[in-house]
Amino acid sequence: MLQYETLNEYRALMYARKLKDMFGKNAQLVCREIGDGNLNLVFQITDKLSGTSIIVKQALTYARVVGESWPLTLDRARIESQALIIQHSICPGFVPKVYHYDPIMAVTVMEDLSNYLIMRKGLAARKRYPHFARHLGVYLARTLYLTSDFALPSQVKKKKAAQFTNPEMCKISEDLIFTDPYFNSETNQFNPLAAERIEEIWNNNPLKLEVAKLKAGFLTHAEALIHGDLHTGSIMVSEEGTKVIDPEFSFYGPVGFDIGVVFGNLLLSFVSHGGHTQDAPERNYQAYLLATIEQIWGYFEQTFRELWEKESKERMTIVPGLLDSYLLHVLEDCAGYAGCEMIRRIIGLAHVSDLESIADPNLRAEGEKLALSIGQKLVLERRQIQDIKDVTCRVSEIAGYGTNQ
Amino acid sequence: MLQYETLNEYRALMYARKLKDMFGKNAQLVCREIGDGNLNLVFQITDKLSGTSIIVKQALTYARVVGESWPLTLDRARIESQALIIQHSICPGFVPKVYHYDPIMAVTVMEDLSNYLIMRKGLAARKRYPHFARHLGVYLARTLYLTSDFALPSQVKKKKAAQFTNPEMCKISEDLIFTDPYFNSETNQFNPLAAERIEEIWNNNPLKLEVAKLKAGFLTHAEALIHGDLHTGSIMVSEEGTKVIDPEFSFYGPVGFDIGVVFGNLLLSFVSHGGHTQDAPERNYQAYLLATIEQIWGYFEQTFRELWEKESKERMTIVPGLLDSYLLHVLEDCAGYAGCEMIRRIIGLAHVSDLESIADPNLRAEGEKLALSIGQKLVLERRQIQDIKDVTCRVSEIAGYGTNQ
Repeated sequence: MLQYETLNEYRALMYARKLKDMFGKNAQLVCREIGDGNLNLVFQITDKLSGTSIIVKQALTYARVVGESWPLTLDRARIESQALIIQHSICPGFVPKVYHYDPIMAVTVMEDLSNYLIMRKGLAARKRYPHFARHLGVYLARTLYLTSDFALPSQVKKKKAAQFTNPEMCKISEDLIFTDPYFNSETNQFNPLAAERIEEIWNNNPLKLEVAKLKAGFLTHAEALIHGDLHTGSIMVSEEGTKVIDPEFSFYGPVGFDIGVVFGNLLLSFVSHGGHTQDAPERNYQAYLLATIEQIWGYFEQTFRELWEKESKERMTIVPGLLDSYLLHVLEDCAGYAGCEMIRRIIGLAHVSDLESIADPNLRAEGEKLALSIGQKLVLERRQIQDIKDVTCRVSEIAGYGTNQ
Repeated sequence: MLQYETLNEYRALMYARKLKDMFGKNAQLVCREIGDGNLNLVFQITDKLSGTSIIVKQALTYARVVGESWPLTLDRARIESQALIIQHSICPGFVPKVYHYDPIMAVTVMEDLSNYLIMRKGLAARKRYPHFARHLGVYLARTLYLTSDFALPSQVKKKKAAQFTNPEMCKISEDLIFTDPYFNSETNQFNPLAAERIEEIWNNNPLKLEVAKLKAGFLTHAEALIHGDLHTGSIMVSEEGTKVIDPEFSFYGPVGFDIGVVFGNLLLSFVSHGGHTQDAPERNYQAYLLATIEQIWGYFEQTFRELWEKESKERMTIVPGLLDSYLLHVLEDCAGYAGCEMIRRIIGLAHVSDLESIADPNLRAEGEKLALSIGQKLVLERRQIQDIKDVTCRVSEIAGYGTNQ
């Protein structure tokens, strides 16, 4: 193709047919659009003869948000495909394989994951995934450590940081996560039944000060190639496997951000389950979610420590105490960013289905207010946090479970 | 020129003659090499007819250090000229004007400053410059604030950060400032009479841990377009004016670094004056140096606060407390980087003439050990520092002057 044109099912099928080494000569291809069509088009193309299938993903030039058109850079398709390739090389099992990237069409052709389910949906159905915490902890440690200054020669890291300069996508996060929710902004959308609590947040200067510091870290701390949008809709799970998708917000940012966004979304699931009734299965599932957070951190820390021991290129990594001090800094950031993610999903433009699916607005407001309280506490008290239990205990306390769940 | 060739006085003169709009038709040009010829060639070209003069500066492909040839990227000439152009537009009086940049020849043609003296030489001669503290404070505030995320739209800042990716030059600083001096490295060079004190530093794990954290900040905190090598040899002074030159180490780094390097070098001058005798004029000059540090910070802070009030584009800058908290963070970094600069100039590869010029090695060792003690204290106690006086009082204390000088 010589210029960008929007694909449809027919064009995507024709596009796939022309790809080299993808399908056999006699392939009987069928195509199906399977995306939500908000930012990107996602086509699944299957050869009925062999059963082989691939994904053809195309970035759209706009986002359909609140009924309006919002122009978006196509460069995010480059960022996404290049991040996937790096992450796949570092962490092969946990990221889809990229077969082809087309800069003009903003198309990435990659591994089909249709036997996986979006994590957020699994959480809503109260599913438990026995390997998820280990997989995600390892994914986080490997993708973050191995793209950092600890593991890469500083020149290589700086060139990668320049390559992953992602100004337009970062601007979306800067506004929607760290700014708009803290003022009475036009982009905000919230449940009127939580309005009083939200006005308290707008008037809470100590909270806004801490959020401003976390935003400054997001703007300036080029620690590792982060995913940049690691909510539970960017994670696909099955009984056996875990895949992290959609790194179009990827850039060199703070290591604690990805982990914090995962935790924030697990906690949004937590509050959504508390929002229905107080029955035992729900409490059990909430306990499972907190245990999952503890386990993710545990596997992250264990893997990070192993990598530090074996893979460090940076000479100062041999200095006693640096690893402990760095992990504490990551945990502090992680708690802060988890809090920011929770708050913005209640007040800001982009909400989560975990809570939106609660039909009764009063019940939903209960969950939303609990999310705001947990988020606020994590932001304000992140410097007191010494251990992942200091995070989960705070959540239990606010949710009224005492410190032992 | 179609390819790089090293200039000499004749070639530099021919080069200057071809520049458009620089000299009149009948100009009578003379050329003189005035650089130290270590990293760059610096030619002064004067029209004897009009008296007009310019500087033609060419980056060499190597550095002559310890008699060896050390390959160096020519891209630093691009970095230097582009940084000078930005700094001149932000801070016209305090940076030489660039007339022309030639990427193939790695040549920058700029304003001649031959009526200015290198600051380090003025300090050695115990000169006092009545406007220097104000000029430098304003230069630091304007160049740092106006290239930061506070003043620039985040997309613009990110593109500038990518443009000023400067991996080779940063690597030199990472090694020579933050790493080599803390181990028994081959590049180190030091006075054997200070060896015992230096071994204490190599065995001081708490110090090395704090240096490792400061190094991590240098590697990852892309706060502003910093000069990157703001020692007193990069500052030129006259009775009336101050010019900051040679930003070939420029990149997006921590705001506290530039200020810290200036302070570190003023304190290296401080210890050099204490290294001779204990007479009153020397003590007076040392008091002048400490007062200068306090004044630079004072003007920096005042100007930074004014800019924050008037020029902020970042919306979170209206949050109460953010400015105070940010300035405290800068002061903390500044103290730490000042300490690192002092230590590396005693143990590492690149020394300063302030101390090297002391002929008696015993007397020199006294100054060097004092520099190490001050540097170490600033690194280790930087988090207790709340005010610039907390820096200067610590210096006075260690130098045995009590807290009131």
